[in-house]
Amino acid sequence: MNSQSSLLAIGIDPGIASIGYGLVRTFEGRLSLIAYGCIETESDEPIGKRLTYIFEEIRKLLGQYAPDIGGIEELYFFRNVSSAFPVAEARGVIRLAFEKTGVVLREYSPNAIKKAVTGSSRASKSQVQEMVKVLLGMSQIPTPDHAADALAAAICTLHSIGPAGYTL
Amino acid sequence: MNSQSSLLAIGIDPGIASIGYGLVRTFEGRLSLIAYGCIETESDEPIGKRLTYIFEEIRKLLGQYAPDIGGIEELYFFRNVSSAFPVAEARGVIRLAFEKTGVVLREYSPNAIKKAVTGSSRASKSQVQEMVKVLLGMSQIPTPDHAADALAAAICTLHSIGPAGYTL
Repeated sequence: MNSQSSLLAIGIDPGIASIGYGLVRTFEGRLSLIAYGCIETESDEPIGKRLTYIFEEIRKLLGQYAPDIGGIEELYFFRNVSSAFPVAEARGVIRLAFEKTGVVLREYSPNAIKKAVTGSSRASKSQVQEMVKVLLGMSQIPTPDHAADALAAAICTLHSIGPAGYTL
Repeated sequence: MNSQSSLLAIGIDPGIASIGYGLVRTFEGRLSLIAYGCIETESDEPIGKRLTYIFEEIRKLLGQYAPDIGGIEELYFFRNVSSAFPVAEARGVIRLAFEKTGVVLREYSPNAIKKAVTGSSRASKSQVQEMVKVLLGMSQIPTPDHAADALAAAICTLHSIGPAGYTL
Protein backbone atom coordinates (compact mmCIF):
# COMPACT_ATOMS: atom_id res chain seq x y z
CA MET A 1 0.00 0.00 0.00
CA ASN A 2 1.85 3.06 -1.20
CA SER A 3 0.81 6.38 -2.68
CA GLN A 4 1.26 4.88 -6.17
CA SER A 5 -1.74 2.64 -5.62
CA SER A 6 -4.07 5.61 -5.25
CA LEU A 7 -4.77 7.76 -8.29
CA LEU A 8 -7.26 10.55 -8.85
CA ALA A 9 -8.44 11.18 -12.41
CA ILE A 10 -10.58 14.00 -13.73
CA GLY A 11 -12.66 13.38 -16.84
CA ILE A 12 -13.87 16.24 -18.99
CA ASP A 13 -16.74 16.21 -21.46
CA PRO A 14 -15.96 19.27 -23.58
CA GLY A 15 -18.51 21.77 -24.83
CA ILE A 16 -19.15 25.49 -24.99
CA ALA A 17 -22.55 25.71 -23.23
CA SER A 18 -22.12 22.81 -20.83
CA ILE A 19 -18.83 21.18 -19.85
CA GLY A 20 -19.08 18.02 -17.78
CA TYR A 21 -16.48 17.05 -15.21
CA GLY A 22 -16.11 13.97 -13.07
CA LEU A 23 -13.51 12.96 -10.50
CA VAL A 24 -12.85 9.32 -9.77
CA ARG A 25 -10.26 7.83 -7.45
CA THR A 26 -8.81 4.37 -7.71
CA PHE A 27 -7.33 2.76 -4.64
CA GLU A 28 -6.03 -0.79 -4.74
CA GLY A 29 -7.96 -1.49 -7.91
CA ARG A 30 -11.28 -0.16 -6.60
CA LEU A 31 -13.00 2.92 -7.94
CA SER A 32 -14.68 5.59 -5.88
CA LEU A 33 -16.64 8.64 -6.91
CA ILE A 34 -15.23 11.92 -5.65
CA ALA A 35 -17.26 14.61 -7.42
CA TYR A 36 -19.06 15.45 -10.63
CA GLY A 37 -20.98 18.29 -12.20
CA CYS A 38 -21.20 20.74 -15.06
CA ILE A 39 -19.72 24.10 -15.86
CA GLU A 40 -22.35 26.10 -17.71
CA THR A 41 -22.09 29.22 -19.80
CA GLU A 42 -24.82 31.50 -21.11
CA SER A 43 -25.37 31.51 -24.87
CA ASP A 44 -26.05 35.27 -24.84
CA GLU A 45 -22.59 36.01 -23.44
CA PRO A 46 -19.76 36.83 -25.88
CA ILE A 47 -17.62 33.82 -26.73
CA GLY A 48 -14.54 35.41 -25.15
CA LYS A 49 -16.30 35.70 -21.78
CA ARG A 50 -17.59 32.11 -22.00
CA LEU A 51 -14.10 30.79 -22.76
CA THR A 52 -12.63 32.80 -19.90
CA TYR A 53 -15.24 31.40 -17.49
CA ILE A 54 -14.54 27.82 -18.64
CA PHE A 55 -10.78 28.35 -18.26
CA GLU A 56 -11.15 29.76 -14.74
CA GLU A 57 -13.58 27.06 -13.60
CA ILE A 58 -11.35 24.25 -14.89
CA ARG A 59 -8.37 25.85 -13.14
CA LYS A 60 -10.41 26.01 -9.91
CA LEU A 61 -11.32 22.31 -10.18
CA LEU A 62 -7.70 21.33 -10.79
CA GLY A 63 -6.59 23.48 -7.86
CA GLN A 64 -9.31 22.17 -5.54
CA TYR A 65 -8.91 18.44 -6.26
CA ALA A 66 -5.30 18.25 -7.49
CA PRO A 67 -5.97 15.24 -9.76
CA ASP A 68 -3.03 13.12 -10.88
CA ILE A 69 -4.22 12.93 -14.47
CA GLY A 70 -7.06 14.02 -16.74
CA GLY A 71 -8.90 12.50 -19.68
CA ILE A 72 -10.97 14.13 -22.40
CA GLU A 73 -12.91 12.78 -25.35
CA GLU A 74 -11.40 13.40 -28.79
CA LEU A 75 -13.41 15.62 -31.10
CA TYR A 76 -15.02 13.52 -33.73
CA PHE A 77 -16.58 14.63 -36.98
CA PHE A 78 -19.61 16.87 -36.52
CA ARG A 79 -22.33 16.93 -39.12
CA ASN A 80 -22.54 20.69 -38.69
CA VAL A 81 -18.89 21.67 -38.79
CA SER A 82 -19.39 25.28 -37.73
CA SER A 83 -21.08 24.11 -34.52
CA ALA A 84 -17.90 22.18 -33.71
CA PHE A 85 -15.67 25.26 -33.80
CA PRO A 86 -16.83 26.81 -30.50
CA VAL A 87 -16.43 23.40 -28.84
CA ALA A 88 -12.90 23.17 -30.25
CA GLU A 89 -12.16 26.68 -28.96
CA ALA A 90 -13.34 25.58 -25.51
CA ARG A 91 -11.08 22.52 -25.73
CA GLY A 92 -8.21 24.90 -26.39
CA VAL A 93 -8.73 26.78 -23.14
CA ILE A 94 -9.38 23.52 -21.24
CA ARG A 95 -6.03 22.19 -22.46
CA LEU A 96 -4.38 25.46 -21.48
CA ALA A 97 -5.82 25.20 -17.95
CA PHE A 98 -4.38 21.67 -17.59
CA GLU A 99 -1.03 22.71 -19.02
CA LYS A 100 -0.76 25.70 -16.68
CA THR A 101 -1.65 23.52 -13.70
CA GLY A 102 0.82 20.83 -14.73
CA VAL A 103 -1.82 18.08 -14.99
CA VAL A 104 -1.41 15.72 -17.95
CA LEU A 105 -4.52 15.58 -20.12
CA ARG A 106 -4.93 12.44 -22.21
CA GLU A 107 -7.31 12.08 -25.13
CA TYR A 108 -9.52 9.11 -25.82
CA SER A 109 -11.76 8.28 -28.74
CA PRO A 110 -15.47 7.83 -27.95
CA ASN A 111 -15.05 4.11 -28.71
CA ALA A 112 -12.08 3.75 -26.36
CA ILE A 113 -14.16 5.27 -23.56
CA LYS A 114 -17.09 2.96 -24.28
CA LYS A 115 -14.79 -0.04 -24.30
CA ALA A 116 -13.02 0.93 -21.08
CA VAL A 117 -16.31 1.40 -19.24
CA THR A 118 -18.46 -1.42 -20.63
CA GLY A 119 -16.01 -3.79 -22.29
CA SER A 120 -17.52 -3.08 -25.71
CA SER A 121 -16.67 -0.22 -28.04
CA ARG A 122 -20.17 -0.52 -29.50
CA ALA A 123 -22.04 0.06 -26.24
CA SER A 124 -24.98 2.46 -26.33
CA LYS A 125 -25.00 5.72 -24.42
CA SER A 126 -27.41 4.26 -21.84
CA GLN A 127 -25.25 1.16 -21.38
CA VAL A 128 -22.25 3.41 -20.66
CA GLN A 129 -24.27 5.44 -18.17
CA GLU A 130 -25.54 2.31 -16.45
CA MET A 131 -21.98 0.95 -16.10
CA VAL A 132 -20.74 4.28 -14.72
CA LYS A 133 -23.48 4.03 -12.08
CA VAL A 134 -22.56 0.43 -11.22
CA LEU A 135 -18.79 0.93 -11.20
CA LEU A 136 -19.05 3.95 -8.94
CA GLY A 137 -21.68 2.43 -6.64
CA MET A 138 -24.19 5.18 -7.33
CA SER A 139 -27.89 4.73 -6.61
CA GLN A 140 -28.88 6.48 -9.84
CA ILE A 141 -27.43 7.27 -13.23
CA PRO A 142 -25.46 10.50 -12.84
CA THR A 143 -27.06 13.54 -14.45
CA PRO A 144 -26.80 15.55 -16.56
CA ASP A 145 -25.45 13.48 -19.46
CA HIS A 146 -22.34 15.66 -19.72
CA ALA A 147 -21.37 14.75 -16.16
CA ALA A 148 -21.97 11.03 -16.82
CA ASP A 149 -19.80 11.28 -19.95
CA ALA A 150 -17.08 13.01 -17.93
CA LEU A 151 -17.15 10.24 -15.31
CA ALA A 152 -16.85 7.69 -18.12
CA ALA A 153 -13.78 9.58 -19.40
CA ALA A 154 -12.28 9.55 -15.89
CA ILE A 155 -12.86 5.77 -15.59
CA CYS A 156 -11.30 5.27 -19.05
CA THR A 157 -8.28 7.33 -17.98
CA LEU A 158 -7.70 5.18 -14.88
CA HIS A 159 -8.30 2.02 -16.92
CA SER A 160 -5.70 3.07 -19.52
CA ILE A 161 -3.03 3.51 -16.85
CA GLY A 162 -3.11 -0.22 -16.26
CA PRO A 163 -2.05 -1.98 -13.06
CA ALA A 164 -1.55 1.22 -11.07
CA GLY A 165 -4.96 2.38 -12.19
CA TYR A 166 -8.01 0.32 -12.76
CA THR A 167 -8.75 -2.81 -14.77
CA LEU A 168 -12.25 -4.03 -15.58
CA MET B 1 -6.50 66.43 -32.91
CA ASN B 2 -7.38 64.35 -29.87
CA SER B 3 -6.51 60.90 -28.66
CA GLN B 4 -9.70 59.57 -30.29
CA SER B 5 -8.26 60.19 -33.72
CA SER B 6 -5.38 57.77 -33.13
CA LEU B 7 -6.15 54.08 -32.92
CA LEU B 8 -3.90 51.06 -32.82
CA ALA B 9 -5.29 47.76 -34.11
CA ILE B 10 -3.76 44.31 -33.97
CA GLY B 11 -4.74 41.79 -36.61
CA ILE B 12 -4.32 38.08 -36.02
CA ASP B 13 -4.17 35.31 -38.62
CA PRO B 14 -4.95 32.24 -36.55
CA GLY B 15 -3.21 28.89 -36.85
CA ILE B 16 -1.54 26.25 -34.76
CA ALA B 17 1.91 26.08 -36.43
CA SER B 18 2.17 29.70 -37.50
CA ILE B 19 0.10 32.60 -36.17
CA GLY B 20 0.47 35.91 -37.99
CA TYR B 21 0.17 39.24 -36.23
CA GLY B 22 0.22 42.77 -37.53
CA LEU B 23 -0.10 46.13 -35.80
CA VAL B 24 -1.40 49.15 -37.69
CA ARG B 25 -2.04 52.62 -36.36
CA THR B 26 -4.45 55.11 -37.83
CA PHE B 27 -3.93 58.77 -37.16
CA GLU B 28 -6.17 61.37 -38.74
CA GLY B 29 -7.29 58.91 -41.35
CA ARG B 30 -3.79 57.78 -42.33
CA LEU B 31 -2.44 54.32 -41.71
CA SER B 32 1.01 53.48 -40.47
CA LEU B 33 2.71 50.16 -39.96
CA ILE B 34 3.87 49.52 -36.40
CA ALA B 35 4.99 45.88 -36.39
CA TYR B 36 4.30 42.48 -37.86
CA GLY B 37 5.53 38.93 -37.62
CA CYS B 38 4.67 35.33 -36.81
CA ILE B 39 4.43 33.23 -33.70
CA GLU B 40 5.64 29.74 -34.58
CA THR B 41 5.21 26.44 -32.78
CA GLU B 42 6.93 23.14 -33.40
CA SER B 43 4.77 20.31 -34.73
CA ASP B 44 6.61 17.75 -32.60
CA GLU B 45 5.60 19.52 -29.38
CA PRO B 46 2.45 18.34 -27.57
CA ILE B 47 -0.62 20.42 -28.43
CA GLY B 48 -0.95 21.65 -24.83
CA LYS B 49 2.55 23.15 -24.94
CA ARG B 50 1.91 24.76 -28.32
CA LEU B 51 -1.33 26.32 -27.10
CA THR B 52 0.38 27.62 -23.97
CA TYR B 53 3.16 29.19 -26.05
CA ILE B 54 0.62 30.86 -28.37
CA PHE B 55 -1.34 32.17 -25.37
CA GLU B 56 1.78 33.61 -23.73
CA GLU B 57 3.10 35.19 -26.92
CA ILE B 58 -0.24 36.86 -27.70
CA ARG B 59 -0.37 38.19 -24.14
CA LYS B 60 3.15 39.57 -24.55
CA LEU B 61 2.19 41.35 -27.78
CA LEU B 62 -0.91 42.84 -26.18
CA GLY B 63 1.15 43.96 -23.20
CA GLN B 64 3.95 45.39 -25.31
CA TYR B 65 1.85 47.35 -27.81
CA ALA B 66 -1.38 47.93 -25.84
CA PRO B 67 -3.60 47.97 -28.95
CA ASP B 68 -7.03 49.60 -28.73
CA ILE B 69 -8.74 46.78 -30.62
CA GLY B 70 -8.04 43.49 -32.37
CA GLY B 71 -9.38 41.71 -35.42
CA ILE B 72 -9.28 38.06 -36.43
CA GLU B 73 -10.51 36.14 -39.43
CA GLU B 74 -13.55 33.91 -38.91
CA LEU B 75 -12.97 30.21 -39.34
CA TYR B 76 -14.47 29.06 -42.57
CA PHE B 77 -15.24 25.56 -43.69
CA PHE B 78 -12.16 23.38 -44.06
CA ARG B 79 -12.14 20.52 -46.51
CA ASN B 80 -10.32 18.42 -43.95
CA VAL B 81 -12.36 19.10 -40.84
CA SER B 82 -10.00 17.43 -38.41
CA SER B 83 -7.20 19.76 -39.52
CA ALA B 84 -9.40 22.69 -38.49
CA PHE B 85 -9.77 21.54 -34.87
CA PRO B 86 -6.24 22.43 -33.72
CA VAL B 87 -6.64 25.85 -35.37
CA ALA B 88 -9.94 26.32 -33.53
CA GLU B 89 -8.25 25.30 -30.27
CA ALA B 90 -5.59 27.93 -30.91
CA ARG B 91 -8.32 30.52 -31.57
CA GLY B 92 -9.73 29.63 -28.16
CA VAL B 93 -6.51 30.52 -26.35
CA ILE B 94 -6.02 33.63 -28.55
CA ARG B 95 -9.49 34.85 -27.53
CA LEU B 96 -8.67 34.09 -23.91
CA ALA B 97 -5.48 36.17 -24.13
CA PHE B 98 -7.47 39.13 -25.50
CA GLU B 99 -10.20 38.72 -22.90
CA LYS B 100 -7.69 38.59 -20.05
CA THR B 101 -5.93 41.69 -21.36
CA GLY B 102 -9.22 43.56 -21.84
CA VAL B 103 -8.71 44.11 -25.58
CA VAL B 104 -11.84 43.69 -27.71
CA LEU B 105 -11.35 41.11 -30.49
CA ARG B 106 -13.65 41.45 -33.46
CA GLU B 107 -14.22 38.78 -36.09
CA TYR B 108 -14.37 39.34 -39.81
CA SER B 109 -15.18 37.01 -42.66
CA PRO B 110 -12.45 36.48 -45.27
CA ASN B 111 -14.61 38.42 -47.74
CA ALA B 112 -15.08 41.36 -45.36
CA ILE B 113 -11.30 41.60 -44.98
CA LYS B 114 -10.75 41.47 -48.75
CA LYS B 115 -13.37 44.17 -49.27
CA ALA B 116 -11.98 46.43 -46.56
CA VAL B 117 -8.46 46.22 -47.95
CA THR B 118 -9.05 46.22 -51.71
CA GLY B 119 -12.62 47.44 -52.16
CA SER B 120 -13.67 44.07 -53.57
CA SER B 121 -14.73 40.97 -51.65
CA ARG B 122 -13.56 38.89 -54.60
CA ALA B 123 -9.97 40.12 -54.60
CA SER B 124 -7.24 37.50 -54.94
CA LYS B 125 -4.73 36.79 -52.21
CA SER B 126 -2.00 38.59 -54.16
CA GLN B 127 -4.24 41.63 -54.70
CA VAL B 128 -4.86 41.82 -50.95
CA GLN B 129 -1.13 41.55 -50.25
CA GLU B 130 -0.33 44.23 -52.82
CA MET B 131 -2.88 46.61 -51.27
CA VAL B 132 -1.51 45.96 -47.78
CA LYS B 133 1.92 46.95 -49.10
CA VAL B 134 0.57 50.12 -50.75
CA LEU B 135 -1.66 51.19 -47.85
CA LEU B 136 1.15 50.79 -45.34
CA GLY B 137 3.81 52.37 -47.57
CA MET B 138 5.99 49.28 -47.54
CA SER B 139 8.67 48.71 -50.15
CA GLN B 140 7.81 45.02 -50.48
CA ILE B 141 4.88 42.71 -49.83
CA PRO B 142 5.09 41.68 -46.16
CA THR B 143 6.17 38.10 -45.56
CA PRO B 144 5.33 35.47 -44.55
CA ASP B 145 1.75 35.23 -45.85
CA HIS B 146 0.39 34.82 -42.31
CA ALA B 147 1.82 38.22 -41.35
CA ALA B 148 0.38 39.84 -44.49
CA ASP B 149 -3.02 38.31 -43.67
CA ALA B 150 -2.77 39.63 -40.13
CA LEU B 151 -1.99 43.14 -41.39
CA ALA B 152 -5.02 42.89 -43.68
CA ALA B 153 -7.15 41.94 -40.65
CA ALA B 154 -5.78 44.95 -38.75
CA ILE B 155 -6.61 47.28 -41.66
CA CYS B 156 -10.11 45.77 -41.86
CA THR B 157 -10.57 46.33 -38.13
CA LEU B 158 -9.66 50.03 -38.41
CA HIS B 159 -11.82 50.35 -41.53
CA SER B 160 -14.82 48.85 -39.74
CA ILE B 161 -14.61 51.38 -36.92
CA GLY B 162 -15.57 54.09 -39.42
CA PRO B 163 -14.73 57.78 -39.10
CA ALA B 164 -12.55 57.37 -36.02
CA GLY B 165 -10.66 54.63 -37.81
CA TYR B 166 -9.84 54.40 -41.45
CA THR B 167 -11.91 54.66 -44.62
CA LEU B 168 -10.66 53.63 -48.04
